[in-house]
Amino acid sequence: MCGEAYRDANSLKDDAMRPSGRKIDEMRSISIEVNVTRHAEGSCLIKCGDTHVLCTASIDERVPPFLKNSGLGWVTAEYGMLPRATNTRMRREAKNGQSGRTQEIQRLIGRSLRAGVDRVALGERQIIIDCDVIQADGGTRCASITGGWVALKLAVQKLMKAGDVISDPLLIPVAAVSCGIYAGQSVLDLDYPEDSEAGVDGNFVMTGDKLIEIQMSAEGSTFSRDQMNAMMDLADKGIAELTAAQIAAVG
Amino acid sequence: MCGEAYRDANSLKDDAMRPSGRKIDEMRSISIEVNVTRHAEGSCLIKCGDTHVLCTASIDERVPPFLKNSGLGWVTAEYGMLPRATNTRMRREAKNGQSGRTQEIQRLIGRSLRAGVDRVALGERQIIIDCDVIQADGGTRCASITGGWVALKLAVQKLMKAGDVISDPLLIPVAAVSCGIYAGQSVLDLDYPEDSEAGVDGNFVMTGDKLIEIQMSAEGSTFSRDQMNAMMDLADKGIAELTAAQIAAVG
Amino acid sequence: MCGEAYRDANSLKDDAMRPSGRKIDEMRSISIEVNVTRHAEGSCLIKCGDTHVLCTASIDERVPPFLKNSGLGWVTAEYGMLPRATNTRMRREAKNGQSGRTQEIQRLIGRSLRAGVDRVALGERQIIIDCDVIQADGGTRCASITGGWVALKLAVQKLMKAGDVISDPLLIPVAAVSCGIYAGQSVLDLDYPEDSEAGVDGNFVMTGDKLIEIQMSAEGSTFSRDQMNAMMDLADKGIAELTAAQIAAVG
Amino acid sequence: MCGEAYRDANSLKDDAMRPSGRKIDEMRSISIEVNVTRHAEGSCLIKCGDTHVLCTASIDERVPPFLKNSGLGWVTAEYGMLPRATNTRMRREAKNGQSGRTQEIQRLIGRSLRAGVDRVALGERQIIIDCDVIQADGGTRCASITGGWVALKLAVQKLMKAGDVISDPLLIPVAAVSCGIYAGQSVLDLDYPEDSEAGVDGNFVMTGDKLIEIQMSAEGSTFSRDQMNAMMDLADKGIAELTAAQIAAVG
Amino acid sequence: MCGEAYRDANSLKDDAMRPSGRKIDEMRSISIEVNVTRHAEGSCLIKCGDTHVLCTASIDERVPPFLKNSGLGWVTAEYGMLPRATNTRMRREAKNGQSGRTQEIQRLIGRSLRAGVDRVALGERQIIIDCDVIQADGGTRCASITGGWVALKLAVQKLMKAGDVISDPLLIPVAAVSCGIYAGQSVLDLDYPEDSEAGVDGNFVMTGDKLIEIQMSAEGSTFSRDQMNAMMDLADKGIAELTAAQIAAVG
Amino acid sequence: MCGEAYRDANSLKDDAMRPSGRKIDEMRSISIEVNVTRHAEGSCLIKCGDTHVLCTASIDERVPPFLKNSGLGWVTAEYGMLPRATNTRMRREAKNGQSGRTQEIQRLIGRSLRAGVDRVALGERQIIIDCDVIQADGGTRCASITGGWVALKLAVQKLMKAGDVISDPLLIPVAAVSCGIYAGQSVLDLDYPEDSEAGVDGNFVMTGDKLIEIQMSAEGSTFSRDQMNAMMDLADKGIAELTAAQIAAVG
Repeated sequence: MCGEAYRDANSLKDDAMRPSGRKIDEMRSISIEVNVTRHAEGSCLIKCGDTHVLCTASIDERVPPFLKNSGLGWVTAEYGMLPRATNTRMRREAKNGQSGRTQEIQRLIGRSLRAGVDRVALGERQIIIDCDVIQADGGTRCASITGGWVALKLAVQKLMKAGDVISDPLLIPVAAVSCGIYAGQSVLDLDYPEDSEAGVDGNFVMTGDKLIEIQMSAEGSTFSRDQMNAMMDLADKGIAELTAAQIAAVG
Repeated sequence: MCGEAYRDANSLKDDAMRPSGRKIDEMRSISIEVNVTRHAEGSCLIKCGDTHVLCTASIDERVPPFLKNSGLGWVTAEYGMLPRATNTRMRREAKNGQSGRTQEIQRLIGRSLRAGVDRVALGERQIIIDCDVIQADGGTRCASITGGWVALKLAVQKLMKAGDVISDPLLIPVAAVSCGIYAGQSVLDLDYPEDSEAGVDGNFVMTGDKLIEIQMSAEGSTFSRDQMNAMMDLADKGIAELTAAQIAAVG
Repeated sequence: MCGEAYRDANSLKDDAMRPSGRKIDEMRSISIEVNVTRHAEGSCLIKCGDTHVLCTASIDERVPPFLKNSGLGWVTAEYGMLPRATNTRMRREAKNGQSGRTQEIQRLIGRSLRAGVDRVALGERQIIIDCDVIQADGGTRCASITGGWVALKLAVQKLMKAGDVISDPLLIPVAAVSCGIYAGQSVLDLDYPEDSEAGVDGNFVMTGDKLIEIQMSAEGSTFSRDQMNAMMDLADKGIAELTAAQIAAVG
Repeated sequence: MCGEAYRDANSLKDDAMRPSGRKIDEMRSISIEVNVTRHAEGSCLIKCGDTHVLCTASIDERVPPFLKNSGLGWVTAEYGMLPRATNTRMRREAKNGQSGRTQEIQRLIGRSLRAGVDRVALGERQIIIDCDVIQADGGTRCASITGGWVALKLAVQKLMKAGDVISDPLLIPVAAVSCGIYAGQSVLDLDYPEDSEAGVDGNFVMTGDKLIEIQMSAEGSTFSRDQMNAMMDLADKGIAELTAAQIAAVG
Repeated sequence: MCGEAYRDANSLKDDAMRPSGRKIDEMRSISIEVNVTRHAEGSCLIKCGDTHVLCTASIDERVPPFLKNSGLGWVTAEYGMLPRATNTRMRREAKNGQSGRTQEIQRLIGRSLRAGVDRVALGERQIIIDCDVIQADGGTRCASITGGWVALKLAVQKLMKAGDVISDPLLIPVAAVSCGIYAGQSVLDLDYPEDSEAGVDGNFVMTGDKLIEIQMSAEGSTFSRDQMNAMMDLADKGIAELTAAQIAAVG
Repeated sequence: MCGEAYRDANSLKDDAMRPSGRKIDEMRSISIEVNVTRHAEGSCLIKCGDTHVLCTASIDERVPPFLKNSGLGWVTAEYGMLPRATNTRMRREAKNGQSGRTQEIQRLIGRSLRAGVDRVALGERQIIIDCDVIQADGGTRCASITGGWVALKLAVQKLMKAGDVISDPLLIPVAAVSCGIYAGQSVLDLDYPEDSEAGVDGNFVMTGDKLIEIQMSAEGSTFSRDQMNAMMDLADKGIAELTAAQIAAVG
């Protein structure tokens, strides 16, 4: 397979260049602590290195108007960042309204999670995933998707235990990882120092080896088809590791 | 002293009535973990029972316009609640703007903390305290003030260590506690089940044995001067315990 | 009683220090003119010295959603200030939205008036109190509560006359007065020159000799338990005078 | 003059049809009380029948950015209605933002008053006219213009007395009156019962016998050139009476 | 007739003074292209000289709440300008909300079109007219009304063809034209260079020889009754030409 | 090259399935009319089948604050849709604020165009691209990017002609095309009927054979690496055709 060729090539490069000292295909350490808040039906605190996101799942027996009496479930997401999650304090969105960036991210999270849900099996109810970034160091939207799936799964487990859902609507985890071109090199799971310097970066959302969403973006730069393939290979590796952590977390 | 008389009277009542089983003058357990986030100049996670608030202090060398060239410092606060900090999910304020309740609380936090600051000693700079409620079980504004002071103190210690501030502008801690009348009885440090049933409740902000702010409010009820005194006695006791925890936390 | 001692002590101080020449326990002149607008079910123009507030009561047979079919009535309030009610013209809130201060005040007025209403006797309807400050000289929220009760009472009298309400839901007037510490002295009913200089000021809402709400606040200062008691004594005196004026006004 | 012919024709019609019993060319009683608020540089309470508007003039030594260093003055206006100025309570604009109607009215008031000002003589300063409707019974925008001119004049008199303005920038009063077609008849100075039924109504702003602004509007109807002329004749008569009242008020 | 006299006088003046070289009573060239968009029930692109407005009519079988079960139809309008329709780019209203000017214009368009509709014959449905200015050179509100009527008529023709409307609710076209006083001269159909210099300008909305709306406005100037009559004469001429173009366009 | 293999495979499938009858790798007809508005420095009306977008470029000699004195230029974009550009009328964003979708699209357009600009050569000035959808039939964001580049190029040509820019900052066109999986088949340039049914769709922004942005998104579905490659091949073909049209348009 042509993708493999790129991975080998990448491994030969000097990995020492990453600010963190990680290899180009090395993820940050992943930790997922579950049931961290008392009120939510499902919750976890996911840590991807220094990026920490609190994800909660809230079950709402009402669906949005366009799904009334459809028998279909819905999953949606909201995203926020605490003002001092970042190096420099950001303005609180409650005072200024959600930025375009925030809306873009929460639409992505919702779409991604829905792609991995059997909405018939879920039944006519809504699960709202809140992803709040406690501390940011790059990759907050990916951590939100990965942790959001865990919170969602825990809430669904509660529904199944109560007999409200019979057949599991969540079979394979949905996870997300970033890749980018940093210092001319395709790298996996960018932290903030890399992200802020990368000419190209993007996010891969996958469920198993299937793709759900790809967002690649160059600012003041471009990338080739070969570089795209290299990043897809890195993403495959990262998603596999995240999926393992998700499965471990939800038991 | 006349205040003492009320406290004795209270102690004779049957304490078993509180949902938590606490005595009428018994605080919830207090825990203050400091330096919990990497970016903020000062931070703590304060837990008053099941109420958990993340407080961060951000130093800004610019002051608001009305203080330019005044030589005086400023402390201000912002408050938020994660949507699922509560039993039922609340609408995210970033989508709807800050409610009147939120604005009222953050004005209170800022005013309270400023009352304990020597603004000349602080010098012409601003410290912004962000109080974000991770989990709520009553008394979030009090926990925000108490934890906010700790975050503020840690940021000031950093300024003093760097030689940017010479004389400590924060001598005595500012702390806050709630009191109320629950089932006809004056009680200390209401949790949510008490708060939602109390005919009268309020908050006392103090620095040592001095008062900074009192907010007592009855909804569908009234209270007497004697009851007010009883609550002030309870507040004295609670503040002393909180102050001790604050001092221990900031070393 | 220990409260009395403070009042005597206060009376010995030099009263000449108040900018208005009033004694420390002397209210401004109170005037309440009723039925000042043609459309409202109840209305008054209350003047506390140079603070003039127009209060109207509007009866709405619909209640807020959370009270539907409860049989309970509701009283709520809105507050505004004409742009040139103050010495310097303020920005019109209709152009900028209600400030935090405005929202805080109107929540206080509504809560205060509700505390004096028998909501069963009122029946399932809503009365909206609008308090619009025509001219401000300190104490506008207190005048709004005191005048708001008069407008409310007049509207209720109309309901009773029409046989829509049988048993009077408003027995004892609700009134409010400010107290503060000005030039080191506890004083009653602060006007603007005092209010802008006071280190501590606050508001007492009472119905007869019962307390409904206390809001004491120090900015850049603190106060003692003794000073608090002195202010409570002053408030008792002021509320008695306001209540007499309210009763005279509503006949 | 051809206009006169229409006036005679109108006078022959049966005037008894107006709900108020007024003749078709009869104004409501006009009262202008000046200096009604303590803080504003100029103020009046104008009553045109049951329409009562409080007008204040605030002098601001800063002009809008587009006039900086132009040597020219500016006059602008803002308009509001108290929520219960009307028969049915309206939503408070501070909670919902200014409606299109409100913006339209305040733009009209500002434009109208500016047309009567010698902006060179006024000098580089701004005068803001606030028109707040205390009680409405039709014709609030006209009363605002007429009363707004009085407040403006009083503020200018203060500037002239202080020597800040040398030559009077306000020579002839600006006044406004409504006309409309009610029950097929052209009538002067519509009150609310007429206004709400009129197929055509409008406003004439004049300074002496010169026109500044005409706004005629038909809803579900039309009007002829002859009817327009009849209304212009009525407006001439009304403006003359208003101008006399304005001159009497400002001494 | 006295109006004619003014027109003759005007014709004697030197017409060469208009920046465009037009005579004082000369309209810009009018072009109305119909059915220019695929989705709308009626549409046209109207060009009055360099002012180009896209007008669409959207049929909505639901009426506003106040008309439910009344059997009456409704016509309303919205107006917008593309940011670069003007010489200098304007801020996009979607980012800042509709200005007072925009709201004023769209209220005028809706009112004007409704005056020419038999709302019983239309039946209980709503037609929304969107007028979006592609290129502006003065007179955009007039072009919107004139073109809006064409779009409305086309949509109504579709309803009649489908048998949903039996009797034509739109008999005589509604059209609008501007007049003003430019360089001391009353002129017809002002373009932007004239409009920006005119001391007096206004809009006449007519249906046949009947008036629907007149808006005359002077900024820093006044006008006489004679000048008003002269402008009304010019408007008569312009409306006749626009009406002919409308009738030609809708076949 | 491995990409070619997929294209051949695709060509063997039954192309008749597309609602428009197009082949799977067949673009809609492209038309780009330039200089369509009088005021903008650059403009075009781009038609991709029934999707029509008006693109204007406005030169602003001021840059955003973060670029002041940097010597670097900036390109940004805003996007809008006329309310009746779509089959069902949408609410006007000027009344409700820009939706998340709108903000996402205009951020994409700006980022994409910037990636193809030599910001040093452009010099310290800003060019704002407005993309307003006159008629929508799928692919509006792609048409906006492709047409936006043309408007941008025309404005730059004007700057170069005037000698304000010396070296051309825009060498290779930036163009965008959509691909998706419709009825199990990878197809090029989706129209609305395809877009609304596609399980996977996305956009490729390219400059020559280099990638700038990829956005692939599955709703209720997933896609494989092979399908991704097939879509990238289709995009290559589409971009080549669009680029040829762009070059022809700008001469």
